[in-house]
Amino acid sequence: MRQAGRSLPEYRAIRAEHGFHEMITNPALAAEVTLQPVRRHRVDAAVLFSDLITPVQAIVDGVTVETGRGPVIERPFRSASDLARLRALEPDDDVPYVAEAVRLVCAELDPIGVPVVGFAGAPFTVATYLIEGGKSKEFAATKTMMHGDPEVFAALLDQLADIAIASLRAQVRAGASAVQLFDSWAGVLSLADYRRVVLPATARVFAGLADLGVPRIHFGVGTGELLGAMAEAGAEVVGVDWRVDLRTARARVGPEVGLQGNLDPALLSAPWPVIEREARRVLAQGRAAGPGFVFNLGHGVLPETDPSVLTRLVKLVHEG
Amino acid sequence: MRQAGRSLPEYRAIRAEHGFHEMITNPALAAEVTLQPVRRHRVDAAVLFSDLITPVQAIVDGVTVETGRGPVIERPFRSASDLARLRALEPDDDVPYVAEAVRLVCAELDPIGVPVVGFAGAPFTVATYLIEGGKSKEFAATKTMMHGDPEVFAALLDQLADIAIASLRAQVRAGASAVQLFDSWAGVLSLADYRRVVLPATARVFAGLADLGVPRIHFGVGTGELLGAMAEAGAEVVGVDWRVDLRTARARVGPEVGLQGNLDPALLSAPWPVIEREARRVLAQGRAAGPGFVFNLGHGVLPETDPSVLTRLVKLVHEG
Repeated sequence: MRQAGRSLPEYRAIRAEHGFHEMITNPALAAEVTLQPVRRHRVDAAVLFSDLITPVQAIVDGVTVETGRGPVIERPFRSASDLARLRALEPDDDVPYVAEAVRLVCAELDPIGVPVVGFAGAPFTVATYLIEGGKSKEFAATKTMMHGDPEVFAALLDQLADIAIASLRAQVRAGASAVQLFDSWAGVLSLADYRRVVLPATARVFAGLADLGVPRIHFGVGTGELLGAMAEAGAEVVGVDWRVDLRTARARVGPEVGLQGNLDPALLSAPWPVIEREARRVLAQGRAAGPGFVFNLGHGVLPETDPSVLTRLVKLVHEG
Repeated sequence: MRQAGRSLPEYRAIRAEHGFHEMITNPALAAEVTLQPVRRHRVDAAVLFSDLITPVQAIVDGVTVETGRGPVIERPFRSASDLARLRALEPDDDVPYVAEAVRLVCAELDPIGVPVVGFAGAPFTVATYLIEGGKSKEFAATKTMMHGDPEVFAALLDQLADIAIASLRAQVRAGASAVQLFDSWAGVLSLADYRRVVLPATARVFAGLADLGVPRIHFGVGTGELLGAMAEAGAEVVGVDWRVDLRTARARVGPEVGLQGNLDPALLSAPWPVIEREARRVLAQGRAAGPGFVFNLGHGVLPETDPSVLTRLVKLVHEG
């Protein structure tokens, strides 16, 4: 369950004392908040606490993450000359704290057999931050570059693909036994645009991890229309949000790829019988849609979620 | 093209002098900004300038629209007792300015044969504002009520359906020759939830307008997964955003319903050859997907759009 931490008092206690960037770059803090949901909820895996733009923040000047605003890029990427502001990621030098956090998490979780999932932003989603200068609703600058300057856009995505590969490979070397690539904003694209521009760069990431032999998870939200193309990108598992039921998702991704999802996180504020009914429906659909199903939320945990509900949900899923 | 006004200097000049609520409730101002895109771009129809919550704002105390924040409901609707805060809409008494604005627009457009499209918020979308207290990203309170208190939720949607019917009937009496029902947030729902809860209330609206004999347009965005169900709600035309191509949309809605869409408004910042290529693709797909196609954007015009691009786009579509 992504972002499970932010609903926890123990996460908030740490967050109150430390800036977001500090938590990402201090391995002890990043490891601690990665571990909190495992300790409390007994989930079956830990997703590394990190940020979509952590690697580019280490490479590009003037990139910050502001509270309540998200990533801010002082000089947005708009033309070919901006490509020179990126370079290959050297994980040991640029983001040593990421692998170190993975090592600390593994030290606690390996003995109890809980796998650690590496974390990286997908090329398109990271590109939107660089191009828009931060979060966006409409992605007009991104789409303008994608259509108006397709070579530059493709080159940018390839650079970001290589950065994601380097980051995830370092995390696996440090002990992560699976990886998850987050394409949080891909759902703003048409299928045709996704296939032409984004799929090649995303496939490049998964191909660049293939020799590691670890399960690769491809996350998206609002990506129902793209599921078939996402399944072609090469991951073992594709995420599905609550908008698409798992039977429909299976039909779109074909028989080879596992599915992850798809309980609506907004439902976790509803009375327990509603959550139980919906969780059981997801479980039944997930089993029927086999092979390969990872029960999860369709998106991140909402901050206002009652942690005891999450614990109860995990128990329900374990008891099946 | 919805919200075409806000990209226009002549709109901004009026907006600079008048509050949003004033523009909605002053028929001369509402008519003027409704007419501006027709005068400038020569579009084939005018959509009445109004707001999704205009009718409930006239009925419920403590409802305002704040600049940059959208609708704000002081005491959000959360339980059965809140239903008593709504009542039947009496358009002549509650929102006389809406019909008057339609009359003023018709006085200018009838002689040149340009139809006026009435405007109303769909029950679900209006309900989200009342329940969340304003705009939302996650719609947790809405989904909690929908699942946790389904009778109250259904009753609220039925009340809002009757309000939409009353408002649109008054607009048609005043001269509107088509109506459009905006379900801007329906795309946050799963198909199953949409079918069970939202479709009945939406169908109630369209059924309540059937005897008028005017074309009924059913707008949504991010509603690709819902298109089949939306087509059952009873409108003559269903809106499609850019995420779904019109061939796919046709397959989902069946052969009986017209399609409206689906150029991505974010593309209007791209170089003209890109816009032209994409517009021609939409036109060709729309024709091939016939019968019944209304060229439009897949969502509202972005405020930063260059008005001359819109004019050029309209010309291209007319020359076809």
